[in-house]
Amino acid sequence: MSRPLDGIRVLDLTQVLFGPFCTMLLSNLGAEVIKIERPEGGDMARGNGPFLDGISSYFLSLNHDKKSITMNLASEQGKELLLKLTEVSDVVIQSFVPGTMDRLGLGYETVKKRNPRIIYVCGSGFGQYGPYARKPAFDVIIQAMGGVMSITGEPGRPPVRPGVSYGDIVAGMFMCIATLAAVQERNRSGTGQMVDISMLDCQVTVLENAFVRYLNTGEIPRPLGTRHPVIAPFQAFPTKDGYIAVAMRGGVKDQWPLFCAVIGRLEIMDDPRFKTGWLRTQNYDALEPILNEAIKDKTTAEWIQELEQADIPCGPVNTIPQVAADPQVQARNMFAEIEHPKAGKLRVVNTPFKFSRNECRVEKASPELGEHTEEILTGLLGMTVEEVGRLREQQAI
Amino acid sequence: MSRPLDGIRVLDLTQVLFGPFCTMLLSNLGAEVIKIERPEGGDMARGNGPFLDGISSYFLSLNHDKKSITMNLASEQGKELLLKLTEVSDVVIQSFVPGTMDRLGLGYETVKKRNPRIIYVCGSGFGQYGPYARKPAFDVIIQAMGGVMSITGEPGRPPVRPGVSYGDIVAGMFMCIATLAAVQERNRSGTGQMVDISMLDCQVTVLENAFVRYLNTGEIPRPLGTRHPVIAPFQAFPTKDGYIAVAMRGGVKDQWPLFCAVIGRLEIMDDPRFKTGWLRTQNYDALEPILNEAIKDKTTAEWIQELEQADIPCGPVNTIPQVAADPQVQARNMFAEIEHPKAGKLRVVNTPFKFSRNECRVEKASPELGEHTEEILTGLLGMTVEEVGRLREQQAI
Repeated sequence: MSRPLDGIRVLDLTQVLFGPFCTMLLSNLGAEVIKIERPEGGDMARGNGPFLDGISSYFLSLNHDKKSITMNLASEQGKELLLKLTEVSDVVIQSFVPGTMDRLGLGYETVKKRNPRIIYVCGSGFGQYGPYARKPAFDVIIQAMGGVMSITGEPGRPPVRPGVSYGDIVAGMFMCIATLAAVQERNRSGTGQMVDISMLDCQVTVLENAFVRYLNTGEIPRPLGTRHPVIAPFQAFPTKDGYIAVAMRGGVKDQWPLFCAVIGRLEIMDDPRFKTGWLRTQNYDALEPILNEAIKDKTTAEWIQELEQADIPCGPVNTIPQVAADPQVQARNMFAEIEHPKAGKLRVVNTPFKFSRNECRVEKASPELGEHTEEILTGLLGMTVEEVGRLREQQAI
Repeated sequence: MSRPLDGIRVLDLTQVLFGPFCTMLLSNLGAEVIKIERPEGGDMARGNGPFLDGISSYFLSLNHDKKSITMNLASEQGKELLLKLTEVSDVVIQSFVPGTMDRLGLGYETVKKRNPRIIYVCGSGFGQYGPYARKPAFDVIIQAMGGVMSITGEPGRPPVRPGVSYGDIVAGMFMCIATLAAVQERNRSGTGQMVDISMLDCQVTVLENAFVRYLNTGEIPRPLGTRHPVIAPFQAFPTKDGYIAVAMRGGVKDQWPLFCAVIGRLEIMDDPRFKTGWLRTQNYDALEPILNEAIKDKTTAEWIQELEQADIPCGPVNTIPQVAADPQVQARNMFAEIEHPKAGKLRVVNTPFKFSRNECRVEKASPELGEHTEEILTGLLGMTVEEVGRLREQQAI
């Protein structure tokens, strides 16, 4: 079965999470992704635990279905190999500290001369220009500097980092979107271009609501536990045996009166302080103890049954094992079992992309370091086995 | 200046955040986005506070540069209008509870007959099939059921919802990626298709590392404050006047010895318990008090200066006002000032998409309800003013 990005070849010079998450999505969608790795050790993520028979589970979760070629970009032969590969590729993605690729003689201006159709994607912590451009960054730095940690956590307590590496992951997703947009533009113009994605820019973008509130009303967003800043109720409540998340429709089909009935608090239904989601947010200090008291004595399962009967959106706060066993997640085929030559059978997350005419799914385990070096050099670049052997002697691969 | 998605027309039937965030990105990139809204009240987000001169700041932060047309999809004339628009559009995006569009006679099979090239994108809480398919959902339900709340927060304390509506936002981003992939596929095949994006699937996808660890080692991920599950140090430390986030390179250029020197703890540099990021994670109970003690007596600014001299990635935990004033964020032009006819001058987040040959930026404020009804019906569908008047009398628009 065909996939949406069949025929698109991506050279991936990134490591760890930001870039590899982006190229994982492109690979899910059918692009051929060639990982270009340092001969010594390769992608830094290969060193991240926990390990399965010596293989990094962190690396295994992100690099399935990609190919790996080793290349020493400090050597002249290595540089020339990369340039040759750019001539037969559509996209180059790199996430070195800005300036590095230029210094290596592999910047956009050089690559463009070899292939004017190339889309040259630069991911970095802070972007290709600006006072912090040359600063290195990792996820936690960006989640800290971008503001999300200051509004995640319990009220009045220390900042918390969201449990997902969203500094890397949303940046990887924006990079994927920008890459596909540039491919679409190239279909019209026939020409590639450079794309500049900054992790910090991406954090600001996903914090849109917090910034718009602050910039236009002066209100400083703060941590709210599980609550939403402008809607209520829209949070998790403690139950007898866990937590239940509840949200409700507002507007013309306002569910607030129904919710009051289900939790047995008819007396607050018409209270003018609680008439709309925005009023309930503003008067939350008065509302919170009433709701907590109303909800605490039944189990999560009991509440789900009662709220679902009333068609009020709700759900349990699940642990990771509970999500893994969830019948909906199973029905959507969200885990794939794949075979790795050393780590054996392993389970990874499948793809969220479901199309009616194309089928996307994880198929092959993440490559060993340099697993496809020979295949790519002889197949794609038409080299002889002897030439490959010479490159190996010269430590170019 | 041209933009990557010039020439792509999107009919947007979504509301609040999931769908509108997706179509905001498409609009940033140059697509023409036509918001189709209920005549009474329109997008539910128009009711979300805080309000600027009566206009929802929540709505204003997401819908700039889109057009708004009102349409009553319960009326025969309204349905026919929508079908006519699909004939001149590339993409339809809708996020009703699965089954709703079919019941209205506006499902993919019907639309496809009018325009086989249409890309018909369905966003929903749980996807178009599976046991929960018909359940309604909002962000907090999905963040709860998807597992991220169970691993966000302080160790041993209640679950926390990340301060961004990531249940909606990452799903909107995956929907944007899938839409662009389907557009690329159509460039080859000439045919559209249906796309099915589930918010819960998307949560599982961004939790890849947590699932791979659990599914392959049995380890149950838990909340870790600001820490990373497999790397250390990679977190925020309390300083004399705030918090500083620190991370460091591992692998061949391992920065651990340098970090020990900067914080004045040479005695732990060669401690075998702390040799690698993975060992430091496993022995974190022993490491944590040493690091906290070493860092607590200097200010965040002092630490930044010392760590930056050593080229160790670090940054402050910023509040939203601090991010808004940050020189890098300013240099990247991440806020746009736009004029709204009622709310006046307002500031919204600009776009993270930076291309070398295309310029993307926020230009026009979010539309008033039905602001472009006449323009679209007379311009795009070639109706006369009288015909539009008749539709208005029939309450079809």
